[in-house]
Amino acid sequence: MKLPKNVTIKEVGPRDGLQNEKHQVPTEGKVSWIDSLSVTGLSYIEVSSFVHPKWIPQLADAANVLKQIKREQGLTYAALVPNLKGLDGALEAGVDEVSVFMSASEAHNRSNINKSIDATYPVLEEVVREAKLAGKTVRGYVSTVISCPYEGYIAPEKVRVVSERLFEMGIDELSLGETIGVAVPTQVEQLLENLLPHFDAGSLAMHFHDTRGTALANIVKSLEMGITTFDSALGGLGGCPYAKGASGNVATEDLLYMLHEMGIETGVDLDAVLKSAQLIEKTLCKPLRSRQMEILRGEGKECLS
Amino acid sequence: MKLPKNVTIKEVGPRDGLQNEKHQVPTEGKVSWIDSLSVTGLSYIEVSSFVHPKWIPQLADAANVLKQIKREQGLTYAALVPNLKGLDGALEAGVDEVSVFMSASEAHNRSNINKSIDATYPVLEEVVREAKLAGKTVRGYVSTVISCPYEGYIAPEKVRVVSERLFEMGIDELSLGETIGVAVPTQVEQLLENLLPHFDAGSLAMHFHDTRGTALANIVKSLEMGITTFDSALGGLGGCPYAKGASGNVATEDLLYMLHEMGIETGVDLDAVLKSAQLIEKTLCKPLRSRQMEILRGEGKECLS
Repeated sequence: MKLPKNVTIKEVGPRDGLQNEKHQVPTEGKVSWIDSLSVTGLSYIEVSSFVHPKWIPQLADAANVLKQIKREQGLTYAALVPNLKGLDGALEAGVDEVSVFMSASEAHNRSNINKSIDATYPVLEEVVREAKLAGKTVRGYVSTVISCPYEGYIAPEKVRVVSERLFEMGIDELSLGETIGVAVPTQVEQLLENLLPHFDAGSLAMHFHDTRGTALANIVKSLEMGITTFDSALGGLGGCPYAKGASGNVATEDLLYMLHEMGIETGVDLDAVLKSAQLIEKTLCKPLRSRQMEILRGEGKECLS
Repeated sequence: MKLPKNVTIKEVGPRDGLQNEKHQVPTEGKVSWIDSLSVTGLSYIEVSSFVHPKWIPQLADAANVLKQIKREQGLTYAALVPNLKGLDGALEAGVDEVSVFMSASEAHNRSNINKSIDATYPVLEEVVREAKLAGKTVRGYVSTVISCPYEGYIAPEKVRVVSERLFEMGIDELSLGETIGVAVPTQVEQLLENLLPHFDAGSLAMHFHDTRGTALANIVKSLEMGITTFDSALGGLGGCPYAKGASGNVATEDLLYMLHEMGIETGVDLDAVLKSAQLIEKTLCKPLRSRQMEILRGEGKECLS
């Protein structure tokens, strides 16, 4: 197996993980959680989103969160921004990196951003330009890169077109979002085979949700194809508001377990991550659904017979 | 990706899945569950175990289960047998195939079978010989092929030695058990790289537990290395008696989802399998922990945002 020696984990729990949580987490709860994440060895935390509070009430305190967290040196604290207004708020709050986002699926883009794909480009272009002028790095997100809840299977060509436009705008990294968590390794391979001739593997990140339990298998395939950056969320957070099941992001702690056992270094301390997961578990008043957390709670004990 | 076109799924839920369940399932509950499994397109079901009831009270009714199920033509109904006494019972009950079992780890073998590895060989040899004389095919199980709860990492060489002895006895297929569910794809690759020069890939099956959520990733690696037979248990059954978490076998329905999405045929109808899972869920009075069952219960709904 040809595998990278080092992998970068980008923790998206405080944003992608929390955004659908019904239980409103108070600002100080988010801040102490992010502070506990900051001492795990992570080099990147997506702390919040500067979308209009009407859309994501849970993250309405983005500016306060960014201002109150204790910054670790060398750690990038990022936030999502949908437009110039969001960018202004993020810059004012002292964000290190901003993320712009859109979808590879026309229907999902319209449903999520309320604009066509073509009408989204100029908005993001403006944000990327202004962010760059402010000296910030910019991450692009493309969602529904393999399947869309409305359109079904998304051809890799559609993902390539949107990705090219984002790189032309000047983004520094592109995160490819398997938003609904239905992908299998053959599809990941097909997508990356289409993208890698056009983009440097080092400028791409994979962002898997785990609805069907295939996220780790998809990550292994991505690793074999040269991808070295993965998004994940502590505790597998990120499911639907009404979903008890495991439809969230791939769990950071389960990903760390696998990578470390495979001899791949992440610089992240799994024990420290589990402590941080216990903290947010308490705050959210619900058991986190990762395998590592189940084992920690004594629910997933190894069977000796 | 080089993948097989067809894969055989061997359902071990009624044996490996149930054996640690606290809730005693009445014989008729097992029989109607197995009957529902028989019409899913599965070609192999491990229905019970003829070990002494003292060790696994849940499976004390093995003979009655075998006698009462409605046999589908072409379907192999198998059972575990530890010794000649167990074999007699299994043959008398009309088993199609018997499985003998031992461990690649000395400590696990002693704990599980109460004998050293060397003292186990003659017992199994006798069983294989008599089963063959009775015209039955024999499956061999080697457990703890990657890690042992007592000895830790198990060198592939140890697995090879035990496997060779079992094939010399005349077993028709060998199932390699990753008993405690901690393996990662690099370890699976290392194991198979060591075994495949000695054994035909078609005579090997992989048996993964999913404690760390890595089973599907391990199966993909096994597929890429030419393995075409996999053991799984409906609903991911097979955890510890006191474990609420997902430490059981890889779930048949999650495996089927992935294989089918990868374009690999199994001959098994996922919808029929889910109906069978709902039946045993009712009988066990607890929600099964597979992703497909979570989705069916509306817990794992895809998130559209």
